Order: sequence, then structure tokens, then C-alpha cells
Amino acid sequence: MTKEDTKAKILSEGARIVHDKGFGSTGIQEILNAAGVPKGSFYFYFKSKEDFGLELIDFYMEFILSRMDGHFNNLTLTPMARLKAFFSDIMGFCTSTGCKDGCPIGNMAQELGCVSDGFRRKVAHSMETMKFRICQCVSEARNIGEIDESFDPEKLAAFILDSWEGALLRMKANRSIEPLVLFQEMVFDRLLRC
Amino acid sequence: MTKEDTKAKILSEGARIVHDKGFGSTGIQEILNAAGVPKGSFYFYFKSKEDFGLELIDFYMEFILSRMDGHFNNLTLTPMARLKAFFSDIMGFCTSTGCKDGCPIGNMAQELGCVSDGFRRKVAHSMETMKFRICQCVSEARNIGEIDESFDPEKLAAFILDSWEGALLRMKANRSIEPLVLFQEMVFDRLLRC
Repeated sequence: MTKEDTKAKILSEGARIVHDKGFGSTGIQEILNAAGVPKGSFYFYFKSKEDFGLELIDFYMEFILSRMDGHFNNLTLTPMARLKAFFSDIMGFCTSTGCKDGCPIGNMAQELGCVSDGFRRKVAHSMETMKFRICQCVSEARNIGEIDESFDPEKLAAFILDSWEGALLRMKANRSIEPLVLFQEMVFDRLLRC
Repeated sequence: MTKEDTKAKILSEGARIVHDKGFGSTGIQEILNAAGVPKGSFYFYFKSKEDFGLELIDFYMEFILSRMDGHFNNLTLTPMARLKAFFSDIMGFCTSTGCKDGCPIGNMAQELGCVSDGFRRKVAHSMETMKFRICQCVSEARNIGEIDESFDPEKLAAFILDSWEGALLRMKANRSIEPLVLFQEMVFDRLLRC
């Protein structure tokens, strides 16, 4: 394997374990074992565990944004139908993994937001990026009258993201899809009436 | 100090540090130093770090429920005014601590929901308890026509809790009170129109 392949393998195995156990509870050795990489070679690829964590956030964001883009670029659907399709897709993913992992970015925010300012800024930036994509959908929906024009698209996008993150948190605690179903009902049926 | 005093001191110092840094990143020695308790005496008070974490959840819940009760038992206000007063109170608390700590129960859920089933169940139970208190307020509000009767009180209480937890998460990442202000606007003004 090339250096790039090995680094990618450490990141993908690390992403899986950290999503499952949390960043603080995951040991470097455990990640190297899972990736089949010799002991002691971690620092050849990453300056520190924190540096690894920062790259992990990029890894998670790539997954999330590719799922978002897949739905948000589907112009055969209305803007709100694209947004609903994205959340339904993630609900299916959560169901398939036993509702146990929550949002990897939310996990990092909760666990590391106070530990390092570098982490916090990176997580905040990732959340802004997700909010921005949702905002584009919501703006378009507002422009074509799919939702009420009195909604401020940026505020609405932020609230959708926040209530989704909170629903994922309770899903993880309860090991149940119910909070995500409730999110859809309250946001789309009750708040937006769309 | 009695054994009970020492244990209480370890819990209160531990609560502060864990709220700040996360459970996984906090060392037992660090807590003992802050509490002024001799090295090695931790296991006299707690069977394990996990056992300490479980008692920490009780400690956090006592704080949250006493704040809830203080507002929810204030019968000079309408039920929704009581609920708003509680959230405003916590917003003031968050502002005074620099918007950096988030919800201690949410933090534990995010960080430890996958690590141990004992933790997960305890966190899930704590969330149910918070939901139940909010539900009592919401039910009363519905009975007196303060909110629309088409709302299912239990679902609404769960959604309020989820979107609040998500707002606290983004508050912590952004070090800004804006998500909590937005929560109030979207939930009370837009969704419930009260």
C-alpha cells in the first residue's frame, strides 16, 4: 500500500471506531490494529491524536456532503421533497445501524467542543457548511412558494439542523428511530405545513 | 470531612471538570487533585470510573430538575410562561459561562451512549424525566387553550427537548447564544404561536 492508501485506511477504520465509541475512548493502538498498520507508525501519518481528529472531521463531512448533494441536486423533486428525501435517507442509514451512533459531527462537537479551540472551530465550520446547504434548499422552496415567505431561510435552516441534531442525540440514547420520525412530523407537517 | 462530604466534593469537582472537558478526557487524578483528596482514595468512594459517571448523571439531574421545579411550580405564571421562564433562566446561565459547556446530560449521551449500556440507559432515563416534566407543562397549556389542542403533549414535549438539546450543541460549537434565541423564536413564536 502507498502512504496515501495507508493513511486513508487509518482514517476509515478510525472513523468507524470513533463513531461507535467516541474520540476520547478510542485508543490509537486500537485504530492501528483495525487498520492492520504496524505499532508506532501512527505519527508517520499524523502529527498528534488531535491532528488525526481534525482529519476525521473532514472524512465525516465528505460522507455527509456527498449524501446531501445526491439529494439536493436531484432537480426532479421540489426543494422540500429533496430535503425530506435526504432526512429519510439518513433515517434508513440509522435504522440499518441499530440507531446507535448519532451524528459523527454532533458527537465531535459535544465531546471536543471544550477540549481544543481548533476542534471547536472546525466542528463549527462543518455545521455552518451543513446549514448552508440546507439553506439553499429552503431558500428555493420559499422562492417558489413551497413554504411560507415569512420564514427567514437562514434561521429556518439553522433550526432544522439543530432539531435534527437533537433528535439524533435522543435516538442514540434510546436506540430508537422515534425521535427522527417525530422530527419530520413536527418540522415538515406542523411548522412548515409542506 | 465525613465520607459523605468527601464523596460529595469529588462529585461536585468532577461535575465541573467533566462538564468542561468531557468524561473521556477527564482523568481521575485530576478530579482528586481539584477535590483535595489523597491519591488512590477514589476507589474507596466509587467502584470504577463508570460507577462515578453514573453518579455524576444523578448529580447533573438534581441541578436540572431543581431549576425546572423552581419555574414549573410557579403558579403565578401560565404554563407556557413557566416553560419560557425555565429556558430563559438556562440561557442566562449559559451566557454567564461563555456558552461553552452545553447540556451535561446531552454531553454524556453523545459521548457515552455507545460505550456502556448502563450509561446509555441512565442517560435515556434522565431524558425521559426531563421530557415528562416538560410534558406536564405542555398538557396544562393545552387544557387551558394556551396552545392548539391538536398538539399531542408527549410528542410536543419530546420535540421541545430535542430541539433544545440540538440548540445547546450548536451553541457550544459556536460559543454563541444565537441558537438558543432561535430555539425560542421557532418553537414558541412560530410553531406554538404562544
